[in-house]
Amino acid sequence: MQLLEERIRREGKIRPGGILKVDNFLNHQIDTALLFEMSKEYLRLFGNEKVTKILTIEASGIALASMTAYLFSVPLVFAKKSKTKNISDEVYAVEIPSFTHGNTNTVVVSKEYLQPGDRVLLIDDFLATGAALVGLKALVEMAGGTVVGAGIAVEKAFQGGGDKLRAEGMRIESLARIASMSDEGEITFC
Amino acid sequence: MQLLEERIRREGKIRPGGILKVDNFLNHQIDTALLFEMSKEYLRLFGNEKVTKILTIEASGIALASMTAYLFSVPLVFAKKSKTKNISDEVYAVEIPSFTHGNTNTVVVSKEYLQPGDRVLLIDDFLATGAALVGLKALVEMAGGTVVGAGIAVEKAFQGGGDKLRAEGMRIESLARIASMSDEGEITFC
Repeated sequence: MQLLEERIRREGKIRPGGILKVDNFLNHQIDTALLFEMSKEYLRLFGNEKVTKILTIEASGIALASMTAYLFSVPLVFAKKSKTKNISDEVYAVEIPSFTHGNTNTVVVSKEYLQPGDRVLLIDDFLATGAALVGLKALVEMAGGTVVGAGIAVEKAFQGGGDKLRAEGMRIESLARIASMSDEGEITFC
Repeated sequence: MQLLEERIRREGKIRPGGILKVDNFLNHQIDTALLFEMSKEYLRLFGNEKVTKILTIEASGIALASMTAYLFSVPLVFAKKSKTKNISDEVYAVEIPSFTHGNTNTVVVSKEYLQPGDRVLLIDDFLATGAALVGLKALVEMAGGTVVGAGIAVEKAFQGGGDKLRAEGMRIESLARIASMSDEGEITFC
């Protein structure tokens, strides 16, 4: 999606260790008009998939996912990072390692909000190693639902997570796919 | 706002200790069409205030705040819960105690995203003790900006935080104000 690529090129900042900061419009300060355009693109791509729910993970995916849920006219569910290791039997839980923070979060969804028969579109702002998508997919499948695909804002393709999941059969639509980032700040898109 | 009050009456669940769970449409599973109607109400109430930014705090306020920012056509900024106690000098930071979780979070906003001259509308899903609004207001004022008011979804008026802040001069518009909740599950609105 040219609009997003241009914005990344203009305002993205590269930090040591393969971190791309898009805090100016996607992760901390958020341009909701841009999110709306991105969500329209997800609707174009997945609009025929009979989506019943949008699932994302807190926190930075929520804004994009809520616009998308609005356009699809389906509920948004966001998986929560659990504060405790004591998991109640009212939730589905998975462990998701975080590339950015170098830790692992226990992530939960109430069993009420994922059901057998749900056709779930995953939405997230970043795709790097794919750990978040793997975890979200596991939550949906614990509930007996189906993942119809994933709508991603920025895929760091050089980290390989997206292609690995595609090879396993997940449909992933990333609106910007980064082939490489140099320490000098140059970004090359796929 | 009748739409929200009816929804709380129908789907809200009361938990021991004065906790109101609205996980079904506001906090975990989210009805974005409802958020859109709520955001239109904030636009009606604050539309003449020359708002330049919407500020909320992660995570559960983000969906509502992003709809509001979209309708106001201004950036959304969300204050982040810091993972470390080491605060960089690139951010404004405050301590915000959490009524629900019984802990205190260090909450930060990058100095880039709050500026002198900003006219900020605070948005949050809940108002109880008012601690979150006090903290967000402090962040705006550290930056030399002005808080034009706060748009809240559910105010637990019996906890007194809203009236205390109104007495100090903050304009607070809560779309549902709860006067009391009984352990039997009865909710009375103001």
